[in-house]
Amino acid sequence: MQLLIKNGCILTSSGEFTGDILVEGEKIAAIGSNLQITADRVIDASGMYVLPGGVDQHTHYAGLNTDGVTLSAGYETSYGALIGGTTTLVEFAANEPGMGIIESLDYRKNVRAKGKVSPDFAMHALCTNIRPDLCDEIEKLPEYGVSTLKLFMAYKPTALYTDDGVLFKAMRAAAKVGVTMYVHAENADLLNLLRDEEFEQGHTEPCYHYQTRPPFVEAEAVQRAIILAKAAKCPLCVVHVTCKEAAEIIREERLRGAPVVGETCTHYLVLDQKRMDDPDFMVASRYVCSPALRTQEHRDYLWRALAKGDLDIVASDHSGIPLTQKIWGKDDFRKIPNGCPGTGDRLQMLWTYGVETGKITRQRLVEIFSEIPAKMNGIFPRKGILQVGSDADIVLYDPRYRGICTLETNPSGVEYNLFEGMEQIGRVETVLLRGNVVVENNKYVGVPGYGQFIPGKAYGMAYDLL
Amino acid sequence: MQLLIKNGCILTSSGEFTGDILVEGEKIAAIGSNLQITADRVIDASGMYVLPGGVDQHTHYAGLNTDGVTLSAGYETSYGALIGGTTTLVEFAANEPGMGIIESLDYRKNVRAKGKVSPDFAMHALCTNIRPDLCDEIEKLPEYGVSTLKLFMAYKPTALYTDDGVLFKAMRAAAKVGVTMYVHAENADLLNLLRDEEFEQGHTEPCYHYQTRPPFVEAEAVQRAIILAKAAKCPLCVVHVTCKEAAEIIREERLRGAPVVGETCTHYLVLDQKRMDDPDFMVASRYVCSPALRTQEHRDYLWRALAKGDLDIVASDHSGIPLTQKIWGKDDFRKIPNGCPGTGDRLQMLWTYGVETGKITRQRLVEIFSEIPAKMNGIFPRKGILQVGSDADIVLYDPRYRGICTLETNPSGVEYNLFEGMEQIGRVETVLLRGNVVVENNKYVGVPGYGQFIPGKAYGMAYDLL
Amino acid sequence: MQLLIKNGCILTSSGEFTGDILVEGEKIAAIGSNLQITADRVIDASGMYVLPGGVDQHTHYAGLNTDGVTLSAGYETSYGALIGGTTTLVEFAANEPGMGIIESLDYRKNVRAKGKVSPDFAMHALCTNIRPDLCDEIEKLPEYGVSTLKLFMAYKPTALYTDDGVLFKAMRAAAKVGVTMYVHAENADLLNLLRDEEFEQGHTEPCYHYQTRPPFVEAEAVQRAIILAKAAKCPLCVVHVTCKEAAEIIREERLRGAPVVGETCTHYLVLDQKRMDDPDFMVASRYVCSPALRTQEHRDYLWRALAKGDLDIVASDHSGIPLTQKIWGKDDFRKIPNGCPGTGDRLQMLWTYGVETGKITRQRLVEIFSEIPAKMNGIFPRKGILQVGSDADIVLYDPRYRGICTLETNPSGVEYNLFEGMEQIGRVETVLLRGNVVVENNKYVGVPGYGQFIPGKAYGMAYDLL
Amino acid sequence: MQLLIKNGCILTSSGEFTGDILVEGEKIAAIGSNLQITADRVIDASGMYVLPGGVDQHTHYAGLNTDGVTLSAGYETSYGALIGGTTTLVEFAANEPGMGIIESLDYRKNVRAKGKVSPDFAMHALCTNIRPDLCDEIEKLPEYGVSTLKLFMAYKPTALYTDDGVLFKAMRAAAKVGVTMYVHAENADLLNLLRDEEFEQGHTEPCYHYQTRPPFVEAEAVQRAIILAKAAKCPLCVVHVTCKEAAEIIREERLRGAPVVGETCTHYLVLDQKRMDDPDFMVASRYVCSPALRTQEHRDYLWRALAKGDLDIVASDHSGIPLTQKIWGKDDFRKIPNGCPGTGDRLQMLWTYGVETGKITRQRLVEIFSEIPAKMNGIFPRKGILQVGSDADIVLYDPRYRGICTLETNPSGVEYNLFEGMEQIGRVETVLLRGNVVVENNKYVGVPGYGQFIPGKAYGMAYDLL
Repeated sequence: MQLLIKNGCILTSSGEFTGDILVEGEKIAAIGSNLQITADRVIDASGMYVLPGGVDQHTHYAGLNTDGVTLSAGYETSYGALIGGTTTLVEFAANEPGMGIIESLDYRKNVRAKGKVSPDFAMHALCTNIRPDLCDEIEKLPEYGVSTLKLFMAYKPTALYTDDGVLFKAMRAAAKVGVTMYVHAENADLLNLLRDEEFEQGHTEPCYHYQTRPPFVEAEAVQRAIILAKAAKCPLCVVHVTCKEAAEIIREERLRGAPVVGETCTHYLVLDQKRMDDPDFMVASRYVCSPALRTQEHRDYLWRALAKGDLDIVASDHSGIPLTQKIWGKDDFRKIPNGCPGTGDRLQMLWTYGVETGKITRQRLVEIFSEIPAKMNGIFPRKGILQVGSDADIVLYDPRYRGICTLETNPSGVEYNLFEGMEQIGRVETVLLRGNVVVENNKYVGVPGYGQFIPGKAYGMAYDLL
Repeated sequence: MQLLIKNGCILTSSGEFTGDILVEGEKIAAIGSNLQITADRVIDASGMYVLPGGVDQHTHYAGLNTDGVTLSAGYETSYGALIGGTTTLVEFAANEPGMGIIESLDYRKNVRAKGKVSPDFAMHALCTNIRPDLCDEIEKLPEYGVSTLKLFMAYKPTALYTDDGVLFKAMRAAAKVGVTMYVHAENADLLNLLRDEEFEQGHTEPCYHYQTRPPFVEAEAVQRAIILAKAAKCPLCVVHVTCKEAAEIIREERLRGAPVVGETCTHYLVLDQKRMDDPDFMVASRYVCSPALRTQEHRDYLWRALAKGDLDIVASDHSGIPLTQKIWGKDDFRKIPNGCPGTGDRLQMLWTYGVETGKITRQRLVEIFSEIPAKMNGIFPRKGILQVGSDADIVLYDPRYRGICTLETNPSGVEYNLFEGMEQIGRVETVLLRGNVVVENNKYVGVPGYGQFIPGKAYGMAYDLL
Repeated sequence: MQLLIKNGCILTSSGEFTGDILVEGEKIAAIGSNLQITADRVIDASGMYVLPGGVDQHTHYAGLNTDGVTLSAGYETSYGALIGGTTTLVEFAANEPGMGIIESLDYRKNVRAKGKVSPDFAMHALCTNIRPDLCDEIEKLPEYGVSTLKLFMAYKPTALYTDDGVLFKAMRAAAKVGVTMYVHAENADLLNLLRDEEFEQGHTEPCYHYQTRPPFVEAEAVQRAIILAKAAKCPLCVVHVTCKEAAEIIREERLRGAPVVGETCTHYLVLDQKRMDDPDFMVASRYVCSPALRTQEHRDYLWRALAKGDLDIVASDHSGIPLTQKIWGKDDFRKIPNGCPGTGDRLQMLWTYGVETGKITRQRLVEIFSEIPAKMNGIFPRKGILQVGSDADIVLYDPRYRGICTLETNPSGVEYNLFEGMEQIGRVETVLLRGNVVVENNKYVGVPGYGQFIPGKAYGMAYDLL
Repeated sequence: MQLLIKNGCILTSSGEFTGDILVEGEKIAAIGSNLQITADRVIDASGMYVLPGGVDQHTHYAGLNTDGVTLSAGYETSYGALIGGTTTLVEFAANEPGMGIIESLDYRKNVRAKGKVSPDFAMHALCTNIRPDLCDEIEKLPEYGVSTLKLFMAYKPTALYTDDGVLFKAMRAAAKVGVTMYVHAENADLLNLLRDEEFEQGHTEPCYHYQTRPPFVEAEAVQRAIILAKAAKCPLCVVHVTCKEAAEIIREERLRGAPVVGETCTHYLVLDQKRMDDPDFMVASRYVCSPALRTQEHRDYLWRALAKGDLDIVASDHSGIPLTQKIWGKDDFRKIPNGCPGTGDRLQMLWTYGVETGKITRQRLVEIFSEIPAKMNGIFPRKGILQVGSDADIVLYDPRYRGICTLETNPSGVEYNLFEGMEQIGRVETVLLRGNVVVENNKYVGVPGYGQFIPGKAYGMAYDLL
């Protein structure tokens, strides 16, 4: 089976040019100019940008709370990612009740996700219940095809929380075998203090979520994680960086040689914390995620940091929490389940508010949306690049489209889309996943559950910083 | 009663000159050249340096463990400080069993120390058992004549340990009333991990004390304390800074405007960690204190930091732990009581290894030995300066003396002096405490228990950095 | 002859206290509390601050242009300094026509200044005509009692200008014998370009003076001078720092160990560049000096830099240019003689706009007004401190006075005072110069020409930074 | 005409993969895997790396001295570049006697280079004789197809020298029209001083060349150029960075947002200054270029700076000065014509000493050897990338080769090759220039003079930094 994409403007991280892409089976077979080939199918990409399918390195489908209860929409809703041009997810595999890290990965891959994931997916280990065999398990990750491990510095005293000793021990183990450490960086004790203080004063509304997570609480933990990572000689990815203070620390530490890479998320780039001031709890609570949304000043800084290479990845931190669960925090903002959907929104938001405003170039978009997350997770160059021999994960983006983001056009898996009502420039027209057309005319036309597990190789990109 | 000190070289933090000092009662009445006064007593200071009595802002007499057991030599041994030219101590008043902060201060002043302290003394509050009324108590400190509060970031999970939430809360309360926060900065979780790991491998000797307290464990906590202090707008004193990494953080944060002052201690400036390698446990264990002694590279950096103003105070962290207690850790280095005596050694050590080697000037010596600690604790200018109207706490130092440090000449209150056998240039000849001659010919001639409590005023020097 | 100053609040760089000062002959004989002495004369200082006489390290009396023509008011007007509490000048001795450095110093001391200087004075060499024997002459400066040398990086292609090669050579020679290098730092080529461009467009008014001297022109030269000084290992004083950019460079280079000290001047701290927008040329031209006055943002930064120790000296750069000379630039701003009077205004301006507003402490005032310039020029502790044995140069400042600066009260030697009309808090009541009362009730009562040459010792304070 | 390169390992700045490249006429028509095309010619690249032809952005063929005398080997020797895998030169077009900038560019293109250049070439304007119409000429550069202008901060007082005023003026003019400024950064006055001093002491040998060009002389000028560039908002390329001090300044200024890119050259990366100590003048003098070769410490730093992106380009600064001219400086090192050949050596040296040692990745090699210089000079993506539609400038590099660099294998155009005798890993086997095979089996087989002028577009890559 041969498929030919003709006359698109092909975007790479180095440049762009008009050309054709020949797909044979699941792979890119050729990139050329005016390729004289009689393919089985030809897609006219005139007027479109052609870019590699997105890699969303931070998603939580079927997320678990510490009791093992499922907190977010499941894999059957994951086709929404494809409509947004994301062809590979990197899923967090939290510990299943009573299981260790490897067993939980296995359970997620072979039970929870089995037959339900529409994009391809890799996995992060996510240790949410520290056991004595932690380091042994970490050392087995590479052979299981997992090259990253995430730990939480927040959420004390739940099982999610990891203290600095365990974090350091895990880093040492990870560094031994080429696993990259991912951290959720917020100071657990400070959060507890600030949140409880407000609640005890009768402050229960969602707006107290952001008021009790000031930037220094995040920045401190980022600094601490980096100091530990340097001592352990373990590459580190700080996920969901939201504020200037944290981004500055990453920048300065990189200058001094720290092996750290920073990720931010779509919503931190385009949404304001005031969303949580909405008097309607069912609206305000949608925006509750951790760390919290910030002000314009922070967003401006994050865009600059992305443009300059101080931050390198934009992910979604997708967590499709239904309103029926958000309401748990109606009388106590501390009980609102944290998380926002968004795996289908990255590309349009980055294009509209980044590329079209001149904040980032199209080349940088390719890097932060696809190439760098693929490299970080050890799945490059199979994923993350339009290159001969790579998987034919290809997005055709029509920059002429003008519209408004709606739940209908950008399904999130739950009752709301975080970006509803925002202007959108351009949209995904067509998406190929391993050579198969899964999106046409911005509609999902694929076979649900077609996604494959993509094993990640150890010693991902962050190891180059050592 | 008039006493006249004639023809000494009077040292101040600005300069030095030959002159006379007239003492009337407890105060300095005049500083002059060839003063024509018929005093009741005349002391010839020819050939001597005359400097203000030392302020040792970090001493633990009758220190308590968390069970309230006395761990270090008591106030009756405090005359040793005077022989070393220190006329004012700032004592840490740990929580007494079942008592709050204020009550513990009161108990220490009026029971434990009553009639036993030979130098004058101020006090730091030392909260070693967090109670709900912490902030209320902090706000009462200034009226009790205490302007500082110390908390421990290490020693988890004992009652000594303070988590970041409580630390931040305490900082906010302190800042409200002009109290300066003091912190013992080491990462508690990392210490527990590293120490237990070694012990579990059968490593029990004192040398594992320093091997399990690497510099980054201290530096991380210093950085964290400063981030919290900046957020709380609370001036901070980091006590016993031992290493380059921590001193660099202090320097850089000060440049960015952080209200932080750094203290180091005599032993970190002149003793090497190898002392703990001594095969004789009874020798090696003497050097066990926290943070640990370091290498030459760190000592070199500390001296430069003192000279350049990145560190501002040298204290003793005096804790006279008898060998009968040190032996508790014979089979487990984790059980060796931490602490070293030294309140009587600061001046000779700073003179011999700092002034005589050209590492610091005599003017800087006056600052770090006396003036700055007095300012930090709100007892300046009553203490810490040779100035008309100040207490006549005066030291005559003979720079011509050459000798060796011995326990006999420098009594520490216990069976050993940490610096025994080291060369010493110069010695204290004469000391006046509030106008009374308490040391003559390097021998204590005072009245034991003559020391007074000196109340400290709030808004000490570190508040100038805000 | 004994003189007793009673009951003043004595200011030092370390503290302040109420006391008495006994003066015997020209020296301070004692500082005491309630001194029981029957002096020949007693001055009641109740309610006054008593501080050391000011050292103005940057004055140009009888300044010369490159033709040897006198450009500024002569030494007979120097009594104005005393009325402003400045008891020692450090005069720049520019090359006399046909003379070398040493000969010019000698001519200035023994001919130009002879019998005319009312305060005491030291001298800087000021090489304005480079000769082959430059380095030989530099090496002779210390024995002549001069410990500093100033060169101009601006004013190309006049004889004032020094190129970088000569500057470096001079630095090497200076470093050999303990001479401190002073530089006027502005980029000569940039000034020529920018000034000529404006003039060629018909822009002739005084406002073009500041418009053609933007901050980067100064900052670049400051950076360059420091790089050269580091390479030559020669301590450096950057005079008249006016802007944030330059002050930041000094701060950062000091952190990296560069031996550099920064001076700013009174007018850069309190006057705005808009003064040069005045439509009346005879007003606008008074404010023409180099570098130029700046905006509020820069003044705010300079005050902070003084408070934090990034800048260490405030001088006047006094140059009393009469309006009959200012008018030379009526049709060409490039021809307005540069320079402003101000040696008599430092203390009141620093007090009113620095101390009273909380920008600097009284202790820091003593340092930047008197102590540090004395140390920089090798005349400390004879000058710059209230200390037994030092010259009895003493100022009584009455902080209760409220008034307006006028030419009458603050004579400048020319037809205008730069600060006329500005509010003033406090004033100099009494001044002693070497024990003689030279100002009473804010009026000069001294003997004109009484000032002595004070030789400066080599290896001044800036050498401590090496 | 179709040509197919089969089965090579295709190197890009993002990755590498095994594939085929189809060339049609002068362009790359397709990049594919196992392309099923019957081409006119097939080249088997098995076992080879396939990379884009090099862009050497710093070459001086037929260089002129200030009298217009030709100082270096002419364009007829430029085929040597092709043997080393460089397919595009960017030539400096110095002012011809009596001609302006544009006229000189024209004369070089249409007379000097006409029919003689074997690789393709772009041009830099090189103003070596400032005229009043400088800015007008700069503004015409883009329409002439030149997007860069170089000025010399050294070589005072020859016509090459530009003072800071002219440099700033030129920067402002360049910024208006998208021209990037290139500077030779060394402090002219310091060089004159240091060089003349040595010569006057009878020091005439080549080793005094490097002894009189210490790093700070270069670093100072780099700093100055950047300050001016920031003020003029003009992107800057600092050519031939040789030392740690200069590279650090570039790095720090970039962090602060300065629009500056740094180039270093092959010889600064692999040759030591001791080469100039050779007792044989005819050997030592070959290594005389400006700035001078440095020590191992500096080379280590340069490699790291290249790897980390602080420096972005490696050029040759090719200047083929025959020994018959080098000898002019036999008795005076100041008269040795400066310059070294090397346009044919970049690739093997970067491969052998960079890639094979692990100092840089193959991806980074592609960037610094080809992609970034193409972008800087406005000739990307026509040059500098293996991309469909780009010129088919393709290099096949055989990494299995082991040998020694000789003049015969790497002809330089003069009697010596700078790297003779050094080990070499890998070599260029085949080179295509616009689709024509010009090198086979490491031998030149092309048509001399086949090179074309490639016009550069304004607003090159450095403008992205603004």
